Amino acid sequence: MLVLGVDPGTYKMGIGLVESDGESYSLRLSDALSPPRKAELAARLGWLHGRLEELVAELRPDVVAVESPFVGRNIKAAISVGQAQAVAMVAAASHGIPVSMYAPREVKKAVTDNGGSSKEQVQDMVQFLLDLPNPLEPSDRADAAAVAICHINNTQAHDIEVWE
Amino acid sequence: MLVLGVDPGTYKMGIGLVESDGESYSLRLSDALSPPRKAELAARLGWLHGRLEELVAELRPDVVAVESPFVGRNIKAAISVGQAQAVAMVAAASHGIPVSMYAPREVKKAVTDNGGSSKEQVQDMVQFLLDLPNPLEPSDRADAAAVAICHINNTQAHDIEVWE
Repeated sequence: MLVLGVDPGTYKMGIGLVESDGESYSLRLSDALSPPRKAELAARLGWLHGRLEELVAELRPDVVAVESPFVGRNIKAAISVGQAQAVAMVAAASHGIPVSMYAPREVKKAVTDNGGSSKEQVQDMVQFLLDLPNPLEPSDRADAAAVAICHINNTQAHDIEVWE
Repeated sequence: MLVLGVDPGTYKMGIGLVESDGESYSLRLSDALSPPRKAELAARLGWLHGRLEELVAELRPDVVAVESPFVGRNIKAAISVGQAQAVAMVAAASHGIPVSMYAPREVKKAVTDNGGSSKEQVQDMVQFLLDLPNPLEPSDRADAAAVAICHINNTQAHDIEVWE
């Protein structure tokens, strides 16, 4: 199973392609996509959409897993998150690839077994689970890989239930 | 000047193509795009993006004008609005067409001279300004035409200032 994890942002979008054979994970690609910082919002979203579409077409993941970052009561942050998520969803949908969404607590719990863990704890566990020489930096890259791992764990748990 | 107004929504997206010769407006196209209601969010966004991209490619507006609907303190609504806006912005950006955003009060003020007017008042004034036999229904269509009118008024006001 090949999962493209996405940590959505309109200035920086973490992506992580994780493969699983059911026993271990391996990181196939990791990046933080950054549109030109001074570009206007529509241009940044267009740039991100273009890059994601190319990646999805090239990598052909089975699923695109997108995090729904925690926005608290911040309306402006919520609108931005919605915009960044949509870019990822549209890129997946146009290639007929299913999208799964995960809340931050689910993602943290999947990799650290604790829904309230810190960014650093997530980075450390992602490094460990993917057997990497160093933590993924910036943390958007680790978060994206963590969303992919979260989806893989969820799906494998469901598969086991089916066969019980 | 040819402006494509968009009233963004993930279930229904109003669009209105308004042309202005500097003296009067005319409505070239009006629709409310509705993806299959039971489709999942990513599929709905992908569907809307596909339709909007076709329209932008075919109609070649000078500008895409997008409303930023009022969401109050509703975080879920804010994320949805962000998602729907992004779809319109990405469709415009991929054809190199500039995007302008307008708050609901600006749009209402542009067509009714009152930022606090009702949906019905907007529908009535859009009907009057565009010389239509009936109000645009559903109101998403009227709102989209109103955003386009708002952008035209804004731009013409700026033009006049330049020449003063």
